[in-house]
Amino acid sequence: MKVLKYLLIFIPISLIGEYMHLSEPLIFIFSALAIIPLAGLMGESTEVISYYAGNRIGGFLNATFGNATELIIAFFAMRAGLFDVVKASIAGSVIGNILLVLGLSMLVGGLKYKTQYFNQKVIDVTASMLLFAVIGLTVPAIFTHTVNAKLLTTRYEGLSIIVAIIMFAIYILSLVFSFYSHKDLYATETTEESKPEWSLRKSIIVLVVATILIGIESEVFVGSVEPMTKAFGLSEFFVGIILVPIIGNAAEHSTAVLMAYKNKMNVAIEIALGSSLQIILFVTPVLIFLSLLFSPMSIIFNAFELVALIFSVLIANRIASDGESNWLEGVQLVAVYIIIAASFFIL
Amino acid sequence: MKVLKYLLIFIPISLIGEYMHLSEPLIFIFSALAIIPLAGLMGESTEVISYYAGNRIGGFLNATFGNATELIIAFFAMRAGLFDVVKASIAGSVIGNILLVLGLSMLVGGLKYKTQYFNQKVIDVTASMLLFAVIGLTVPAIFTHTVNAKLLTTRYEGLSIIVAIIMFAIYILSLVFSFYSHKDLYATETTEESKPEWSLRKSIIVLVVATILIGIESEVFVGSVEPMTKAFGLSEFFVGIILVPIIGNAAEHSTAVLMAYKNKMNVAIEIALGSSLQIILFVTPVLIFLSLLFSPMSIIFNAFELVALIFSVLIANRIASDGESNWLEGVQLVAVYIIIAASFFIL
Amino acid sequence: MKVLKYLLIFIPISLIGEYMHLSEPLIFIFSALAIIPLAGLMGESTEVISYYAGNRIGGFLNATFGNATELIIAFFAMRAGLFDVVKASIAGSVIGNILLVLGLSMLVGGLKYKTQYFNQKVIDVTASMLLFAVIGLTVPAIFTHTVNAKLLTTRYEGLSIIVAIIMFAIYILSLVFSFYSHKDLYATETTEESKPEWSLRKSIIVLVVATILIGIESEVFVGSVEPMTKAFGLSEFFVGIILVPIIGNAAEHSTAVLMAYKNKMNVAIEIALGSSLQIILFVTPVLIFLSLLFSPMSIIFNAFELVALIFSVLIANRIASDGESNWLEGVQLVAVYIIIAASFFIL
Repeated sequence: MKVLKYLLIFIPISLIGEYMHLSEPLIFIFSALAIIPLAGLMGESTEVISYYAGNRIGGFLNATFGNATELIIAFFAMRAGLFDVVKASIAGSVIGNILLVLGLSMLVGGLKYKTQYFNQKVIDVTASMLLFAVIGLTVPAIFTHTVNAKLLTTRYEGLSIIVAIIMFAIYILSLVFSFYSHKDLYATETTEESKPEWSLRKSIIVLVVATILIGIESEVFVGSVEPMTKAFGLSEFFVGIILVPIIGNAAEHSTAVLMAYKNKMNVAIEIALGSSLQIILFVTPVLIFLSLLFSPMSIIFNAFELVALIFSVLIANRIASDGESNWLEGVQLVAVYIIIAASFFIL
Repeated sequence: MKVLKYLLIFIPISLIGEYMHLSEPLIFIFSALAIIPLAGLMGESTEVISYYAGNRIGGFLNATFGNATELIIAFFAMRAGLFDVVKASIAGSVIGNILLVLGLSMLVGGLKYKTQYFNQKVIDVTASMLLFAVIGLTVPAIFTHTVNAKLLTTRYEGLSIIVAIIMFAIYILSLVFSFYSHKDLYATETTEESKPEWSLRKSIIVLVVATILIGIESEVFVGSVEPMTKAFGLSEFFVGIILVPIIGNAAEHSTAVLMAYKNKMNVAIEIALGSSLQIILFVTPVLIFLSLLFSPMSIIFNAFELVALIFSVLIANRIASDGESNWLEGVQLVAVYIIIAASFFIL
Repeated sequence: MKVLKYLLIFIPISLIGEYMHLSEPLIFIFSALAIIPLAGLMGESTEVISYYAGNRIGGFLNATFGNATELIIAFFAMRAGLFDVVKASIAGSVIGNILLVLGLSMLVGGLKYKTQYFNQKVIDVTASMLLFAVIGLTVPAIFTHTVNAKLLTTRYEGLSIIVAIIMFAIYILSLVFSFYSHKDLYATETTEESKPEWSLRKSIIVLVVATILIGIESEVFVGSVEPMTKAFGLSEFFVGIILVPIIGNAAEHSTAVLMAYKNKMNVAIEIALGSSLQIILFVTPVLIFLSLLFSPMSIIFNAFELVALIFSVLIANRIASDGESNWLEGVQLVAVYIIIAASFFIL
């Protein structure tokens, strides 16, 4: 998405703005706009490096660093003690990927092609894993919500770490599954990859620079969240669940929609669902582990987040079950997203 | 169902009874028995008019006025301030259609035919839309149930109107989908329609007269709900969720079961699921909009209704997934309905 | 599983231990270890008797007495007033069968065979019935949990008995379905049964002796639950939901895993899901009926149990939907089980 690159101008603007102590809402917007193209560059350079690294290691790199932006933003939010924003942004990423990204993809693609088809078998594995992962995430949360809390905080931490370890182990095993034991299942997917425009050297430099800049911008961004929410009367929760995921995933989202428009539904759906799965199985446990360096963050989501997660995953499984999509399915996904966003906004 | 027409005798009986101030439970029963055949006549005349109007407009008419009886009863209940009865009857219609009507259809059909088949692709679209619609309806409700209430009533109204607008928009779009962009999907369904017995003129007269009479009987019926519940120790909630839907849908229900008995499972299932969908996407938002004329009704269902709705829709999706039915599936659907009804009755 | 038979030595050990008033945790372990091989002998003798009884009656015997061990343990626990342990063990049996047994089967089988196939149509009937059964069990529970309790206890009993009668009726009808009206659906399943090693006479003697001994050991076992939980700081709930089902089902479980290892996935899955279904539709109502002899036990499960049951059944339906399994699915099932067990253990 070349057009996103013009947004790179917001890197100096946001940094100068921060230095000149502009109003926080402006800083919030500027740093958000700066993160969007950086996330895009990061994704692009990871893909090029993956190309040079060969199928297996490349796939692994892509799978692992595909959500690096979310991880970096969440890390700085966590360091600033904004645990609720972090957890809301995890849930929001999953919901946004399944409902908004997949919905827009199916809508945009479906307006051009009457019915779009995808490899139901591959998508099914991802959708099914999403169901398991969300159930795994929900079980301890529901248990802790029903037990009357406070006293048990230390126990929650233990439980969070156990769940995080299990999630991470399944993540590793799922890589073994898709790159080793059942790699032929994914074989039909290989799109004829032409040699990338960038050299390996250039892409490594881009990756390093983009990572550093995203780190800097994330810190600026996170610092502006609290004053901004106060200025506009938004809840931190709304920022976490709706705004952060859109900012962190904008580049990836536009790719998915573009792929759907080119009738490459397999790629579009894999971006949306695969990314959701990575967030639950990789980003979330890594954040739990990293939080042990400061103060332990629990893996217990609140009731809103859980309901939205469960519904999203049920919908993803419903969608995946027939291997077809059309514009009306897209409209319905987006509609559910709007209803969720409106509920979060109003409440 | 010719036999239902003998019930027309209850029109004068109920009106005379009302005039003579008979005991309210009698009025309740008489007016209920009068509504049943009127709803049947309304459905029949709508179908005839649809036949003359041609495929597209006819389909639209049928889809839109198919649940006119529920709409009229609910309108008068709403005007009488019985919001709980109205919402219970919406939920009850959906539950009743999916569990009781579909269950009886599969049971009756399955006792005659070992396995009955239906067009899984078409039913799948409806079942999938039902899932989305119920999720859309559930999300704001769950959110408002967890936030502690009272203070936020005005906000609920805003949220209710937004959700109603989205539901209504999806309803319009679903008509575009089935009568315009993807109409071939439904093409295999066309049953050889023979010229109806009634003339267009006759059917219009019947429709107008039946609508007026249903209006009158609904007002009588609604007026008797409160005194009747007190006399028999029933909750208004039980009346709304079990009795009103059975009365409003009796004619339609008997058609569905008859179709199943004739091994026309596609028609039977479409009546049950399509009608449920219409109630959520068309009747409910229209009622929300109409309520603005008096005092705004919220779209927030209570926990009982939500649970019953979600389970019913999950079951509908499960049933639709294999394109087959047998008597045991029918028994199970009816059993779940009986358990729900017994729970509502006892609690 | 011949190796289990060495555990028979724990019959005298546990009885002598009980007589000598050994510490209760030891009694708990000894009697548990004694029950495991007895349950195995009971299952084996039932199967031999079923063989001699012919297809139809044999199938009925197998279906009805397959969970006799659970029934006996639960009966003695119920007589001792440990209602919470009984209900937890019912839920735990279902969860354990679906997540642990099925998971281990898919994992062990999947490590040997890349993809394992099963008769999706047959498993679908069972999975679908499980969904209905759990929904039927959940509806009254959710209703009673939201209404504020205590006052309504007598009403709950009435509701419990109604639900139990409906469940039992569906159980009978499901036998009619599988052994009479739709028996051909299951016809492909007949494994070439070789003449059993035991004579009919021997197997009847084994069955009678094993039943008596299980009864005795169950009474010893149940008596040691309370002191043991106190000694180890475990909750009775944890014992009921995790330990009792493992003890009662160990023999059966090892058979399922063995079948998966031999690539007989149909048998393995039918053991896991069929057994779960029997527990809900047969064991549970029979326990409710039996409880009327002492003091009535309600069929109302607690929130933990319900959530775990619903998730397990959703997973079972997801698994059944494609007719295939692999080791990663197995890992995920076991992971969800571990998360549930860890949550129960910690909370």
